[in-house]
This record gives sequence, structure tokens and C-alpha cells, in this order.
Amino acid sequence: MTETIPHWLSKQANLAPDHPAIELEDGTKLTFLELQHKSKLFAKKLAAMEIRKGSHVGILSTNDVKMIIAIHALSYIGAVAVLLNTRLTSEELNYQLEDAKVSVLLTSDEQLSKAEPLHAHKKKSFTDVENMKEANVELVSELHLDDTFTIIYTSGTTGFPKGVQHTYGNHWWSAIGSALNLGLLKDDKWLAVLPMFHVGGLSIYIKSAIYGMPVLLFEKFDDEKVHQAIMHRGVTMISVVTVMVQRLIEKLGDKVYPKEFRCMLLGGGPAPKSLLETAKEKHIPIFQSYGMTETSSQIATLSPHDALEKIGSSGKPLVPAQLRIIHPDQDNIGEIAVKGPMVTKGYFHNQDATKKSFQDEWLLTGDLGYLDDDGFLYVVDRRKDLIISGGENIYPSEIESVLSAMNGIKEIGIVGKQDGTWGQVPIAFIVSNNELTKEEIYQFAEKRLAKYKIPKEVYFVDALPRNASNKLVRNKLLSTINRRSDS
Amino acid sequence: MTETIPHWLSKQANLAPDHPAIELEDGTKLTFLELQHKSKLFAKKLAAMEIRKGSHVGILSTNDVKMIIAIHALSYIGAVAVLLNTRLTSEELNYQLEDAKVSVLLTSDEQLSKAEPLHAHKKKSFTDVENMKEANVELVSELHLDDTFTIIYTSGTTGFPKGVQHTYGNHWWSAIGSALNLGLLKDDKWLAVLPMFHVGGLSIYIKSAIYGMPVLLFEKFDDEKVHQAIMHRGVTMISVVTVMVQRLIEKLGDKVYPKEFRCMLLGGGPAPKSLLETAKEKHIPIFQSYGMTETSSQIATLSPHDALEKIGSSGKPLVPAQLRIIHPDQDNIGEIAVKGPMVTKGYFHNQDATKKSFQDEWLLTGDLGYLDDDGFLYVVDRRKDLIISGGENIYPSEIESVLSAMNGIKEIGIVGKQDGTWGQVPIAFIVSNNELTKEEIYQFAEKRLAKYKIPKEVYFVDALPRNASNKLVRNKLLSTINRRSDS
Repeated sequence: MTETIPHWLSKQANLAPDHPAIELEDGTKLTFLELQHKSKLFAKKLAAMEIRKGSHVGILSTNDVKMIIAIHALSYIGAVAVLLNTRLTSEELNYQLEDAKVSVLLTSDEQLSKAEPLHAHKKKSFTDVENMKEANVELVSELHLDDTFTIIYTSGTTGFPKGVQHTYGNHWWSAIGSALNLGLLKDDKWLAVLPMFHVGGLSIYIKSAIYGMPVLLFEKFDDEKVHQAIMHRGVTMISVVTVMVQRLIEKLGDKVYPKEFRCMLLGGGPAPKSLLETAKEKHIPIFQSYGMTETSSQIATLSPHDALEKIGSSGKPLVPAQLRIIHPDQDNIGEIAVKGPMVTKGYFHNQDATKKSFQDEWLLTGDLGYLDDDGFLYVVDRRKDLIISGGENIYPSEIESVLSAMNGIKEIGIVGKQDGTWGQVPIAFIVSNNELTKEEIYQFAEKRLAKYKIPKEVYFVDALPRNASNKLVRNKLLSTINRRSDS
Repeated sequence: MTETIPHWLSKQANLAPDHPAIELEDGTKLTFLELQHKSKLFAKKLAAMEIRKGSHVGILSTNDVKMIIAIHALSYIGAVAVLLNTRLTSEELNYQLEDAKVSVLLTSDEQLSKAEPLHAHKKKSFTDVENMKEANVELVSELHLDDTFTIIYTSGTTGFPKGVQHTYGNHWWSAIGSALNLGLLKDDKWLAVLPMFHVGGLSIYIKSAIYGMPVLLFEKFDDEKVHQAIMHRGVTMISVVTVMVQRLIEKLGDKVYPKEFRCMLLGGGPAPKSLLETAKEKHIPIFQSYGMTETSSQIATLSPHDALEKIGSSGKPLVPAQLRIIHPDQDNIGEIAVKGPMVTKGYFHNQDATKKSFQDEWLLTGDLGYLDDDGFLYVVDRRKDLIISGGENIYPSEIESVLSAMNGIKEIGIVGKQDGTWGQVPIAFIVSNNELTKEEIYQFAEKRLAKYKIPKEVYFVDALPRNASNKLVRNKLLSTINRRSDS
């Protein structure tokens, strides 16, 4: 049976009207009452543009309080927000706009020029909308958990991107699963630096409305600003990806974080073990997690309880979630399958992809992993990143994890390259301190890795290709060879 | 769409196997892994008695770890637990057993003799079951939130009692609504003294499984033991009714509770304002709440945030809940209606009662109350307790609240009595310190109450009639007159 709950933002505006919902970099605060007021007003202006229940509305913006207001506003109409990655090309964006049947495109003022070549019936900046007259419509007071709220396209490194549909229920259960794992403290404040057009970023603002918790909103990750915020602004939680942890550790130096800072929630793929060990030494409360767009943010997290003993693990599935390994090999490594009320009901308008991705009610994630004897998940790699060399399975993240412990290696990416003899061989892309030699790297690797896992080529690069969430994009590594001559 | 989650006890046995689930008065502890093991074993023994998915199984027991195991065991089979009040007469119990179509009755060893005259196809004590051989059946690993888990009869002061059905979802949402209000701390420990056959008691054990939180289990309320437990056993929360608060305040004297004790959740009807003020002076973290069997425990609670300013209020509806006042009178007092996923889907096998109690998806509670300008709920009284005297509405709890502030009055109950002139008049039943005279009481009342609210008769009694939850049973007050001569 479909559950109905009161609109979550209206609820907080009633329960905690004067409590801050959003805090900006400059210290400006917006209470839940104010956020509700602005969101409802914006909704009535959107309604004047013929946006109705079920309309698909694109949003192209970097993190901005107006983007939050626009998303909440769509929920007050019952319209669907299609969140677009600002780093994509016009061609990529147009594919998503058409595929998602977007009628109206909303953009931040900064993204207006980027929106110019995009196909949408109407295009308006947030400011355009603010300047409109509101329509006299009745807004939504209840949320039906089976209704779709957002569509976010998966990065789509193979084939075309797919539009992941999130219902209100998916977001609700994700927030509740996380709260049951991390606890709920009345002084919690979440620092948001991940882009809101990814589910890991978006989920923070939805948690804010469900928990009645303030979010400290940063447009993007800036290591110095984030460091200062954690040290001095009462932040208790932050969501990060690996590269941010590395930079924050450098900033931290010999200091320690204040004790109210209780959770650095780490997503975006397996992290090098050496990094996690350094974080542990520095008493950084790091919680490695596992999740994807389809699971509406993390679905497994290593709890504080186990963090010290299970370093490198992504923990166990959250209370409402289930996880299992299918077709395990002799090392118990197989594809990770997940199930739970935070898992998407499917891809928009793409029955084929939905059918392929689900077995009964289990989502096949395309990720490889295993469970240890105590049931803790270790994510090995994306199945598509697996390198098969002379019949041996090679997991790029294992090599990355081993080599990143070497002094002088700042960042590393491993990818498979076609090879006439072995089928594929691993090759390495390294951001170094400019003092390392390839010879030293080979020597370091030979002592620690089986012969077939040693990278056959090493390329020094200035930076690794990363997506808008700062995740390593492995399939772009090879193309960096052609752009470099120093290899 | 029906949501499916992993079995909550199995989940905690996986997430926190060594964490205590139950702690007994003598200090014995049962971990989540042990509780799961015992519950599954008990389930397999029940299966040997032909208890199957959908079977209705009566449970007659006072608070006992074996009762918890039996309830969890039924969930591992998918059977429905019909929880029976041990204070009822055989006739009352037989009505419920037949109405609920109970096939098997389980009792604690102490209740075996009470079970003798009861009608059930099979009757077994917990020990009988333990001594059986288990059947080789597959147990439930997932809970479907739409399935019925428990049936609890409402006290039924008018007409016949009705069997309130609770789905797994009702219990889940109740627990989540409470957590979003009270927060979730990793060191929480809930002291359980309310009878488990009432939903307020039962809900503590379900929260335990959902949160992974230990419960300190007491068979019944004993003021000295409870006081000692709060002072010395790391208790952070307790659920109580008004009379328990009175006794605990006496025990507390000039001391204060340890600071980790963060919530005394008060249910069971409106509490006298003077009591709440005394609790406030003594820094007792009292949270007045509002709920009933049909709402699977509290549905509104006064949050810590507002406790000091809104004394006497039951707060606001929990995050997933809605509440409104229907047909308000000139003082804005009307019937309280509630809605939310913790509200029962209806009474077992009683479409008529279900139809009468619901208007659209709103439950008509039969309670009278109003919302103040800030939206805080004040419960005035049960609609059926309302006294109408010469056309004026008189709320017994208002008179009780005023008079209970008088020195020498320990407990007070007000009820309406038929009157030839006025229709009804209020009369008072008082437990006093034996020094008070009726004259003094009338004088006290005259200064503080409108004339028509002053009790027309006062009876001194040794104790007030209370149900197993220690709630005042007003409709039994009048019958105490005939048993007393000192009136």
C-alpha cells in the first residue's frame, strides 16, 4: 500500500520554524520557515509557466541555494526534477533532455550561456522565474511515497546514460537508513560540497528536510574553506570522495578535528588502504560507504563500531537494505546485488535497461566485491574495469591501493590496455612529486604485487581525469596518453 | 507498493551481534545474536505445533524475556501475535480469543492457571514449547510491511473491545517517527516497565530491534527499583504514565537524575499541570505525548526544544504524521483526527467499527483537544468522558489538574454523575493524606473553578481504579461508591 506523509519541508517549517535549514559560506542563514516560504512562492511562479503535476523540469546549476529552492518548489507542485550535470557537453545534455522528456529547463544565472544550445520548450533562469507573477494554485501538502520526485542520469560509461528515477519513498528510506546507521543528534550540521546534481549531494538536502537538520552549503570543494569550516563552524558531518580526503589530510597536518565532528562519509568507490590508515592515525572519523545513483546514495556503510577493525571495507547494508554476492568465483568475488526500498524502481522510459539490471527485486550493480567471514563488504572494482590478463583477474583498485602507499605518489589510476599476448595488461597513470622515477616505481611494485599485476607502462601526468564528483574516470585515462609527450 | 525490508532482528544480529538487546533486572544480558538464536529456535518449535504463516496466536503473560522471544518467534513464522491483558477476567479474555480467531494460546508459566478456563484449541506455556522438538521449517528472512504482525484489543470502555491490527509497517513507522523526534544516540538504553501487552510497552522492544538498542526489562513498575535503575544503570529513556511520574518525583527528593537520562516519555492521557511544573523544577526531561493503540504508540510528542514553553501540551504530530481538530467549538475544542503510516488499517474482522472510526484516511480518535496559535496540541479529554452539565461542557481532566495542585491530594479522579436538574454533575474521588476535609477541598475549588465545575460530591478512597497501564479508568469510579461507607 502506498504510504502518504506530510510534505517534509512543510513539516519542518511547522516543527522547527526558526531552526536553520541552510547556512551559506558567508554565514547567511535560512530557517525552515523561510525555506518553505521561498520554495512555495517559487512553486507558484513555476505554476504560472504551466508546470503541473508530472511535468519534467530540467535543472542545470552548480550548488546554490536557489537550486535547493527550485527542487523543493517542484515537489510542492508534484513535478519531477531532472538534475543535469553542468560538466557535460551540449550534446550529452541534449540527449538527457530529450530522453527525459523535459519540457522546461531551469538554470542558474551562471549557466544561462551554457543552456543556449540546449533543446527545451522553455528555458528560464532562476532569476527569470523570481521575476514572474505567481499563479493562484493549490500546492501539495502531502507526499505519496510511490511518486517520482527526481531523475538523475548515470554517468553511462558504457552505452547511453540511463535516467534513474527516484521516488519520494526512495529518498525517504535512504535518509532513514542513514540515520539508523549514523545516529541523529540534535546539534548535527552537514557540510555539503558534493554537487547537488549527483545523488550523494542531493541526498544531504533531503536529509535536512527529513531530519530538521541544517546544511552548510558550499558551491564546491575548496580544501582550505572546508578545512576551516570543519575546524570552526560546528560541522558534525561531511560527505566526501577519496581525493577530498587526501587534500583534507594535507590541510590538517598535525592538528586534530574538533570532537563534535563525528562523520566523514566517504563514497565514490574504493579508497586506498594507506589513505584510510593515515586517516585512522589522525583520528578522522571516516565512514567508508558503498552506493550509487540507483540506491539513492549509500546503501552500505562501515559503522563507527567496526571502522577500526575492518579498514577498507564498505561495511554492511543499512537496516532497510539487503546485499549479496552473485556468481562468486573461487576467491568469493562476484557481482554485488542489492535490494531495499531506497533502490530505484527502474530507469525512465527504458524497460530494457530496467529488465537487464534487475533480477527479481534485486538490482545487479555491475560492481564486483566479496563479503568477509563476518559479512563485511569489500568492493573490489567496477565489473567493467576488471582487467583480464592471460586468464587472471586483475582489479585496478588493488594495484592503486598498493602503489598509492609509496612516498612521492600523490594520485594513481590503473587501467587495462589491449595486448596482443595477454589480452589486456595493466598500465599506470601517476601524479607524482616530480622526484620519482619509473624504475623506483617498478621496484616498489615488484616487491608487493604478483608479476601479472605490475603495470606494464607508467605515465606521469599532471592530473587524473575526474568527474563532477571528483571520482576517477578510468576509461578516460588511456586518452590522456595521446595528450602527453613525457611518457 | 508494498515495501519489503530484511527481518529487523536478523538485521541487528548481523549488524551488532554482540550488542546487548535485553538486560534483565538481575543484570543478565542477551545480545542481539542470542535473542535472534532463541527466537528462531522458539519459532521452529512453534512450527511443530502447526503454527503457520497467518495463524493467530494468543499470548498471555506479564513482561518476561520469554514473551519477547515468543513475539519475535511469531514474526519468524509470519504468524500474528494477539496480545492479551493479564488483568482481564476469563470472560473478557474469551471474548477476545474468539473474536480474534485465536487457535493457539501461549502463556507464561505463571499464567497457566489463569489460562485454564480460556477457550483455545491448544494451550501451551512458554516452557512447554521450549521442551518440544523443533520442526525443520524455513523461517522468514524478510518482512513485508503490509502484513499484520500484532492484534491488541482496545480497552473498550464503550461497547465491545475491538482488535486493533498492527502491520509491520505500522510498528516500523512508529519507531522511525519517534527516532526523528527524540534522536538516536549510540548509548541509548530504554527502561521498559509498561506491560508488553499494551502497545506502549510492546513498541519499546520493536524499537530495540529497529534501532539496535538495549532494553532494560522490568516485569512491572516498582518505584524504588526504577529510581535506582535511572540513577545507576545508564538508562537514557523510559516510557511512563502519570502516576509513575508522581511516585518517581517522590523518590527523587532533592536529588537530580544523571545527565545521560534524557527522556521520560509520558503517555496515557493528560497529566496535571502542577505535576509537569514540579518535574520541570526538578530538571526531569519529561516529554508529554499523545497516542493510542490505533496509532501504534505515540503519534504526537512535545519535543525537548519546546518542552519548557508549552507545558501541558502533547506537542506536534511526529514527522510522518498529521493531526487536525474536526468540528471545533467556540473554544476551538473538537475531536482529534490523525493520519499517517503508523495508524492501523482497521479493526480485525470488524468492518463496521473500522468504517465508523475512519473518515477518508483519517482516524477519528474520540479524544477532544485543541491546537494553540503555534499549532501545539492540547488534549482536553476523551470525548466519552466529557460531562455536559446544564449545557456547559466540563472536562474532567481540567478539574483534576486544578485540584491535584492542592496539598494533601495525592490522586484524583473526576467523573460525571446523572443529575435530575443539570443532566450531569461532576463528582470527585480523592486519594488524600487523611488530613484533608471535604470543606477544605470545596474552598480550594471555589477559588479556582467556575461554579458549575466544582465537584458536587467528594469521596475519599484508598486507590483509584487503574488499568494495567496504570491509566485511570473513569467509568469504574462510580462503582467504587457502593464499596465504600466513609463517603
